[in-house]
Amino acid sequence: MSDIEIGGAKRARRTWGFDDIAIVPHRRTRDPEDVNTSWSIDAYKFDIPVIGAPMDSVMSPQTAIELGRLGGLGVLNLEGLWTRYENPTPYFEELSRKETSHARLQQIYMEPIKSELIAARLAEIREAGVIVAGSLSPKAVNEHYETVLKAGVDIFVIRGTTVSAEHVSSSGEPLNLKKFIYELDVPVIVGGVAAYTPALHLMRTGAAGVLVGFGGGAASSTRTTLGIRVPMASAVSDVAAARRDYLDESGGRYVHVIADGGLGTSGDMVKAFACGADALMLGSTLASASEAPGGGYHWGTESQHPDLPRGKRVWVGENGPLEQVLFGPAHSADGTANLIGALKRSMATTGYSDLKEFQRVDVVIAPPATSPSKEEPDPLNG
Amino acid sequence: MSDIEIGGAKRARRTWGFDDIAIVPHRRTRDPEDVNTSWSIDAYKFDIPVIGAPMDSVMSPQTAIELGRLGGLGVLNLEGLWTRYENPTPYFEELSRKETSHARLQQIYMEPIKSELIAARLAEIREAGVIVAGSLSPKAVNEHYETVLKAGVDIFVIRGTTVSAEHVSSSGEPLNLKKFIYELDVPVIVGGVAAYTPALHLMRTGAAGVLVGFGGGAASSTRTTLGIRVPMASAVSDVAAARRDYLDESGGRYVHVIADGGLGTSGDMVKAFACGADALMLGSTLASASEAPGGGYHWGTESQHPDLPRGKRVWVGENGPLEQVLFGPAHSADGTANLIGALKRSMATTGYSDLKEFQRVDVVIAPPATSPSKEEPDPLNG
Amino acid sequence: MSDIEIGGAKRARRTWGFDDIAIVPHRRTRDPEDVNTSWSIDAYKFDIPVIGAPMDSVMSPQTAIELGRLGGLGVLNLEGLWTRYENPTPYFEELSRKETSHARLQQIYMEPIKSELIAARLAEIREAGVIVAGSLSPKAVNEHYETVLKAGVDIFVIRGTTVSAEHVSSSGEPLNLKKFIYELDVPVIVGGVAAYTPALHLMRTGAAGVLVGFGGGAASSTRTTLGIRVPMASAVSDVAAARRDYLDESGGRYVHVIADGGLGTSGDMVKAFACGADALMLGSTLASASEAPGGGYHWGTESQHPDLPRGKRVWVGENGPLEQVLFGPAHSADGTANLIGALKRSMATTGYSDLKEFQRVDVVIAPPATSPSKEEPDPLNG
Amino acid sequence: MSDIEIGGAKRARRTWGFDDIAIVPHRRTRDPEDVNTSWSIDAYKFDIPVIGAPMDSVMSPQTAIELGRLGGLGVLNLEGLWTRYENPTPYFEELSRKETSHARLQQIYMEPIKSELIAARLAEIREAGVIVAGSLSPKAVNEHYETVLKAGVDIFVIRGTTVSAEHVSSSGEPLNLKKFIYELDVPVIVGGVAAYTPALHLMRTGAAGVLVGFGGGAASSTRTTLGIRVPMASAVSDVAAARRDYLDESGGRYVHVIADGGLGTSGDMVKAFACGADALMLGSTLASASEAPGGGYHWGTESQHPDLPRGKRVWVGENGPLEQVLFGPAHSADGTANLIGALKRSMATTGYSDLKEFQRVDVVIAPPATSPSKEEPDPLNG
Repeated sequence: MSDIEIGGAKRARRTWGFDDIAIVPHRRTRDPEDVNTSWSIDAYKFDIPVIGAPMDSVMSPQTAIELGRLGGLGVLNLEGLWTRYENPTPYFEELSRKETSHARLQQIYMEPIKSELIAARLAEIREAGVIVAGSLSPKAVNEHYETVLKAGVDIFVIRGTTVSAEHVSSSGEPLNLKKFIYELDVPVIVGGVAAYTPALHLMRTGAAGVLVGFGGGAASSTRTTLGIRVPMASAVSDVAAARRDYLDESGGRYVHVIADGGLGTSGDMVKAFACGADALMLGSTLASASEAPGGGYHWGTESQHPDLPRGKRVWVGENGPLEQVLFGPAHSADGTANLIGALKRSMATTGYSDLKEFQRVDVVIAPPATSPSKEEPDPLNG
Repeated sequence: MSDIEIGGAKRARRTWGFDDIAIVPHRRTRDPEDVNTSWSIDAYKFDIPVIGAPMDSVMSPQTAIELGRLGGLGVLNLEGLWTRYENPTPYFEELSRKETSHARLQQIYMEPIKSELIAARLAEIREAGVIVAGSLSPKAVNEHYETVLKAGVDIFVIRGTTVSAEHVSSSGEPLNLKKFIYELDVPVIVGGVAAYTPALHLMRTGAAGVLVGFGGGAASSTRTTLGIRVPMASAVSDVAAARRDYLDESGGRYVHVIADGGLGTSGDMVKAFACGADALMLGSTLASASEAPGGGYHWGTESQHPDLPRGKRVWVGENGPLEQVLFGPAHSADGTANLIGALKRSMATTGYSDLKEFQRVDVVIAPPATSPSKEEPDPLNG
Repeated sequence: MSDIEIGGAKRARRTWGFDDIAIVPHRRTRDPEDVNTSWSIDAYKFDIPVIGAPMDSVMSPQTAIELGRLGGLGVLNLEGLWTRYENPTPYFEELSRKETSHARLQQIYMEPIKSELIAARLAEIREAGVIVAGSLSPKAVNEHYETVLKAGVDIFVIRGTTVSAEHVSSSGEPLNLKKFIYELDVPVIVGGVAAYTPALHLMRTGAAGVLVGFGGGAASSTRTTLGIRVPMASAVSDVAAARRDYLDESGGRYVHVIADGGLGTSGDMVKAFACGADALMLGSTLASASEAPGGGYHWGTESQHPDLPRGKRVWVGENGPLEQVLFGPAHSADGTANLIGALKRSMATTGYSDLKEFQRVDVVIAPPATSPSKEEPDPLNG
Repeated sequence: MSDIEIGGAKRARRTWGFDDIAIVPHRRTRDPEDVNTSWSIDAYKFDIPVIGAPMDSVMSPQTAIELGRLGGLGVLNLEGLWTRYENPTPYFEELSRKETSHARLQQIYMEPIKSELIAARLAEIREAGVIVAGSLSPKAVNEHYETVLKAGVDIFVIRGTTVSAEHVSSSGEPLNLKKFIYELDVPVIVGGVAAYTPALHLMRTGAAGVLVGFGGGAASSTRTTLGIRVPMASAVSDVAAARRDYLDESGGRYVHVIADGGLGTSGDMVKAFACGADALMLGSTLASASEAPGGGYHWGTESQHPDLPRGKRVWVGENGPLEQVLFGPAHSADGTANLIGALKRSMATTGYSDLKEFQRVDVVIAPPATSPSKEEPDPLNG
């Protein structure tokens, strides 16, 4: 594993991102129409393997409903503007203006969370008849999870930059994930995690799914501020290895691996499955839908930290309605529209017909060219 | 082969592009005048190993004729504007204007293909006395090939992003390549393909030549949209290995390996031969000839897809008449003019006198410098 | 070690910079509040592992005092403007104007050093009640160290681009480091050094700490002018290996390893500890504090050389008061503010509670993406 | 050697450029004043290991004389403007104007070479009392060398993009290098060459020195046009290995290895010696001297080719008089001034005192950072 010497006192292994790899067709091709992209977690089945990231710029109650109707799963951030403000609209408007400072963003998020708004927002989603999912950060679980359970969720998500099975704290009782999940009667998805051993420990807590990545994706600067990063291709593949080993260890419990971050194009998404993902949690690509609450801007929960923000507000633009982003038609070739169509075509081109089989597709290491390349040309510049 | 660990659940091999390699002179040099660049496929012999890509921005009936007269082979795209419109000129004009949207490009290509235009365009080429070649995508072969055969072609090309020997479809009978090629009485060139095993299977269908690459070259975004890519140096070399092994397996059938994509400079073209190519299918470099139909713009067939375009229209500029692009004189040193002169000089400098021998030339892995380099300087900036 | 062939006559080993690596969380997390960042050298204990670099753009007597009060150690350059000019203010003002030429910078530093100013500046720091440290270059030690000792320092720093245990000179008696350190009664920190063997020799001179790097950091061009460089991750790790081996050889003398250079973000700083550093000497990040003498500009001692400057004046901007740079709150996520908060959070996220343990944290080789990446996006561009 | 698989039909070895490596200090340092940079070839001794490249933008009779007086060797291109025109000044003026086209450059060089001008230019250099050296391309040797010998040179240079020991031609008798060198009574320097075997063959012709590289350096586009390239660190090291093996094979003949290309900064030059060079042929750095004939522009002989130019005219700017470029003082830190001072300081910093010993200095593989780096910052941007 750690086969490379950094220096006399440190060894490391090489890791790889989605940009570093590509998938390779084999001897058989298939019609895209014959490809199945459904997946299931616990009792819930979805037509498309897309989970909307619980970020204010991505999921509102309305976009969660819309994503549910389109066959995916929307997850509402229960520590976002919707549970802090009765009427969050003015704050969204402010955050979709270019000149709004990061300090102002931090200030807007200082408003306390209200239990009654958690209940109201989840009820709104439930009334629409789609599967209901909400997320809390590990720190907020103890305070708010009873409110959440009373309001009712079908799937519960615990999402932080890094979530471990064993949090140590000298101040108060930390969240005991294993006990918590055992006592809960809804499936729990938990993460981020990015390596084999911590993923295996998370699986042992009884989680139904684990999020691979450090959250935030396009809007994250965890690497610059904290020095922490595992490129996504290696992270997903390592956690998939933990899934395989835990399946054996547990005598058959299959924990779903959900890639969360680094998924800016349909090509990246295809590669996540090729590395072993069962589903995707999407942020920036859904934030660019015309219904998205961010109005073309995108920011993560870690950007809100009052003292140490580890993310920024980024411009992702507008790519048409959510339905078009997912199912086309696309009128550009930059990998940000008709995401499901691209996934189906890629699976068909390599001869696969379902997502689980597609995890076996051949990949090669093929970093993008460093010089202006003929294979990956500049956009129209005439 | 797959000797690198991406993560616990995935291994891969390292692959290389033309940009990553360079050829190395050896102990002998030669006069460029003594170098022979001819090649043959089936009964047809060509002075230069250049095939014009069947793309609307590259090959019209007139440029196919011109390329044939200059010693190469022009292939007309039989699903392009020339077979959709009696008079395609207004559409070409529209597509050579910067402001034309991609949605408009998709719309223009929704016009149905007319059998009588297929016949007329091929007849026009035949009347000029050059070798006649036309191309169809795999999907269109069943519908149009009889028209093509009736009109008469010397060489038939089946070209798609990825073509396999075994296409599986639940709707209707898919193209059975082996049967189709067996029954045809003209040599067939088929592709793209980019790895050893699928290439070997394609060769077993009886193809006279295989196209290496995923089509589209400069105008392609297959990597971004589908996650699919094999860098061209590795792809050509792997398919050349399949040619060698199939030559043995078949007791002497030599299937020609034709590099198709990533060939933006004469230096790239030289490297394609060094990796084992027998000939080149050129797109962007020929699209920059002053006769080219695209008027300085270049786009591929996959850019036309109504729902999921996997390519864009790119500006390639104008580099003088086709004859000058191929044979000089060049008045710049950027590798886009006097392509054949550059190939001859490179072969001479490394001591080789024909293309087949030149496949043995030494190459090194020599990625371009990532920092502003003294070896590869910026253009005139004073 | 030197396992890679450059060519038939030269072998080399691969080395790595902080940019090439990242740290990885493990199975346990922790509260940032429970993390301890203190370190000690000789009898002196510091709350934070930050040493202000002896560069005129970073440390004045006043900023050295301020850094001491905040828990770190300020080191005054005793060959800078403060010991050359009774009133250096006009020269600082000149050097904080964009249009000032490098030739003028060289000229300003031609003014001789005055012994009485060395004494006065050190006295000013001592009167403030903080730990007093001053630095000289190896060349200047013989001439000025008695003045320094008479004035009184708690910690003495000898800092040059490269300092070896054995300097050979045909003109006059060179500095005998071993004898000098033996006779001195204050702890000595000495460097730069960047490889195992020279670090081991420096440790044998009796130094209390060694500086890893070639000085100057952001303002250095040693690589371009002299061809000399060791990327910092490998350099720190190699010197940490020398510390470990010298600890055994000496029967228990622990020489502190201080990273000096390449530390432009909190993420870089975290990685320095992960590679084995005990403390950091910071330049550009402290030069961007609003109290810093450079007024937003930063330059190193090697930039002053009259004939062969190996550094330039660079713009580092202003990031708020020194206290905010070190302890936040941060209002951006670029790794230049709340440096200690980021260090604590990174240690907590990976489950560590003190700096010495944190040297064992897992790292991976994870170079930044070469193409515009989704994981490390562009700043706000909407 | 060729240990990396490009694909099934091709293997290659990894090669390295000067940008990829860096030199590392060891346990001893030295005073720059104690360093000796002299070298000898045949009976001629030079204080500095600098040969002026025979390019019109670098060497005129006057600059060749000036370089000789400063301790180096100037080589006049005997196929340049000085031997084509009685008064070349108007043509130099034209080529130092930005708007002059490449086609016009090609046209200017169509004027025939005059024997009497060869004689006159060499006589002018000889009268100044410095060592006289002139160069011809391999093609021109047969026609002009008797003129050259009659005029008298001390050192004869044969320089082309690639020169081999065995040139094959169907038209006329090619140059037999071995016979030619044997019959000549002056030492011959010949190149470019870039790999072990062709270098060994060149050494066996009796050459006193070989040029490593493909000529042209900053002004060359051999890679883009011909696909030919060997990064300079590997090329120099391979040819140095040939020197070592030929020394044994020949029973003691030491053939000098002269790096020619990729030497844009003093850091690059230092690395050339570290890889085994005995001396340097400099182009762009000398072309930036204020006396240089190119007036801030630089172009190589291969840019003159009427049909296939493999180089362009590039702007290199003006860095002060030749003496200052070589010996300082430098007022910038970009590695383009005080070249010899930088070489001496680098040798001193790593503990060496003469060039032959310095070939043993430790190097590491340390590619420049691909992201905006703290170690190699942008220039002043405040």
